[in-house]
Amino acid sequence: MDLKQKSINLHKKHKGKISIQSKISLKNKDDLSLAYTPGVAEVCKVIEKNSQQAYDLTSMKNTVAVVTDGSAVLGLGNIGGLASLPVMEGKAILFKEFGGVDAIPITINSLEVEKIVETIKLIAPTFGGINLEDIAAPRCFEIEERLRNELDIPVFHDDQDGTAIVVLAGLINALKLVGKNKDNTKIVINGSGAAGIAIARLLRDYGVGNIIVCDSKGIISKERDDLNQYKKELLNYTNLDNSSGTLEEAMDNTDVFVGVSVGGVLNFNMIKKMKKDPIVFAMANPIPEIMPNDALSAGARIVATGRSDFPNQLNNVLVFPGVFKGLLKARCQINNQMKISVAQVIADFVEKDLSEEKIIPSPFEYELYDVVAETIYKLSTSKND
Amino acid sequence: MDLKQKSINLHKKHKGKISIQSKISLKNKDDLSLAYTPGVAEVCKVIEKNSQQAYDLTSMKNTVAVVTDGSAVLGLGNIGGLASLPVMEGKAILFKEFGGVDAIPITINSLEVEKIVETIKLIAPTFGGINLEDIAAPRCFEIEERLRNELDIPVFHDDQDGTAIVVLAGLINALKLVGKNKDNTKIVINGSGAAGIAIARLLRDYGVGNIIVCDSKGIISKERDDLNQYKKELLNYTNLDNSSGTLEEAMDNTDVFVGVSVGGVLNFNMIKKMKKDPIVFAMANPIPEIMPNDALSAGARIVATGRSDFPNQLNNVLVFPGVFKGLLKARCQINNQMKISVAQVIADFVEKDLSEEKIIPSPFEYELYDVVAETIYKLSTSKND
Repeated sequence: MDLKQKSINLHKKHKGKISIQSKISLKNKDDLSLAYTPGVAEVCKVIEKNSQQAYDLTSMKNTVAVVTDGSAVLGLGNIGGLASLPVMEGKAILFKEFGGVDAIPITINSLEVEKIVETIKLIAPTFGGINLEDIAAPRCFEIEERLRNELDIPVFHDDQDGTAIVVLAGLINALKLVGKNKDNTKIVINGSGAAGIAIARLLRDYGVGNIIVCDSKGIISKERDDLNQYKKELLNYTNLDNSSGTLEEAMDNTDVFVGVSVGGVLNFNMIKKMKKDPIVFAMANPIPEIMPNDALSAGARIVATGRSDFPNQLNNVLVFPGVFKGLLKARCQINNQMKISVAQVIADFVEKDLSEEKIIPSPFEYELYDVVAETIYKLSTSKND
Repeated sequence: MDLKQKSINLHKKHKGKISIQSKISLKNKDDLSLAYTPGVAEVCKVIEKNSQQAYDLTSMKNTVAVVTDGSAVLGLGNIGGLASLPVMEGKAILFKEFGGVDAIPITINSLEVEKIVETIKLIAPTFGGINLEDIAAPRCFEIEERLRNELDIPVFHDDQDGTAIVVLAGLINALKLVGKNKDNTKIVINGSGAAGIAIARLLRDYGVGNIIVCDSKGIISKERDDLNQYKKELLNYTNLDNSSGTLEEAMDNTDVFVGVSVGGVLNFNMIKKMKKDPIVFAMANPIPEIMPNDALSAGARIVATGRSDFPNQLNNVLVFPGVFKGLLKARCQINNQMKISVAQVIADFVEKDLSEEKIIPSPFEYELYDVVAETIYKLSTSKND
């Protein structure tokens, strides 16, 4: 049986992936009196008097809403909230398994920024944090920015920051392996959606010398007159030589390819045009920009994808469980220093067994998540000192 | 230590009452490939093609949103969504423990009907049903009615229908014990919020002969010029003799008192004025309209409250877990026939050990919930025949 059918069968057998569990026993009248009426009234009153008590007396401190409009799901595009639910439930179980965080899928049946922001704000007060998920660019940027300004709980857009952090972690180790320096490395990012733009921003903050971003029409340059606000902003720090042309032209003399676009857009010839020791991160899901074997046979030295069934899985599962565990504890927003530090600790985590086939930890190296959470927490407290 | 402090300690110890659990194993790369990327993409595609498949492939079929605006919580009034969260989490664990239903608390930070309805509609598509909770009257009536018309999943307002059903169940058994007949029974309902109006409607449908409803200003009668639309509608089938006056006057020659109001409003003298074998349902939470011992010493023959620490707990926990289990299976709205039948099966459930101190099953008689669910399901299918 192939993977697709196996996955369908697994979902059918369990009727989805998440359920609610009680943390306390409910076996007799005394239990009911304490967990529910009349005892619970006192708990409500305590919170009514001091809203901060909700962090100690309810599950909200450890609970994150995983919110999507279903508009940019995996490589599937705008499939809507309902069809995205298997991904959101998947996210929820990864949150739990790897970060111990309780995550609840919420889909919003609208593609309007205003409605999405308002809906999240209306339901946010009983969540410890908001994880935005699979919302299409450029809408996602405005939604994230507004929520960060208008809510006092952590807001994280996994497709942006989670992906950017894991790419940077992989890049740190890949450059180490090939002996190249970030300052004079040329990186082509293919895809200028949520992930592409967030990766470009983080690589800039990290200090990568030469970044080119492409979208489906080719290199993003000053010559283009079809750029939205966010793509225009890229020109402040990418493509400083103002080159233009196709993805294939961009690949000329490139050290690193980062694909967050669609399956199959990278071919043998494009890799041939890269500099010595090509690094190829083909992260489109579920079909990568180029299959790992094809990339290797074209001369790539290091290949990574987003998939769990190939080596070097650059999946944000390495990031969001620990990051949110840390943000929930610190009750703060993530900042650039945290993102770079988290990328560095993820990279450092594979120091001992670093190789072309192991530039990134496996999701099953469970100690990682606490290291990430502690990195976030420490930076949050040092800032407050 | 008193109950209040014990309850606070319990909530603090566990940091709230609910958590998310994975239904499937996530222990290696193969598990990840099936539960998440790349396998999950196929599951999304199947649902995108046929939305009905979401009922088989996700957790939505068994998942209910417990939605409140925090405006009418227990006897505490409008304490807001955050302070209501301990009640919502309590509801969620009762749903799970007694009905096997996964319930997720959602609070909406608004008191406007339009915003509440819109928010619920925007997030509803990935839930199997909506349980409205602790929303103040008369707003709750409009919200419930609109959602039933505008959504294609079950919508149940527990404070209305849940309470009405459990009151009717208790009433059926109480009347049986005292040997009275519904047709010539006089019942005073004190409280004309969500519960009071729903109880009046259901008792009318059941065929109770003489119903008087009071609010804080006394008997609801044609003489009053301060009645909202829903209280006016009561006059079509209650207080047909058009009496007016105080609650105390209403209690004259009454067979049954049903209190869904506030603690302490019923006194010794009022019970003295009732007919032979007074039946007193003092359901205000957490403080009943009269404490059971006081009611008994005033001559009440049967006393019930909403609390788990007295005999005869008329709590809707007997209703909502089984009702929703049935509605989720049947994928239909509840109707009057279902409500009366459920009340009857709950009443029948105590046939063997029926007594003044046992007019209603205990929540721990676990077989009850399946009987209720099956009652709903059978009626739904017979309707479709």
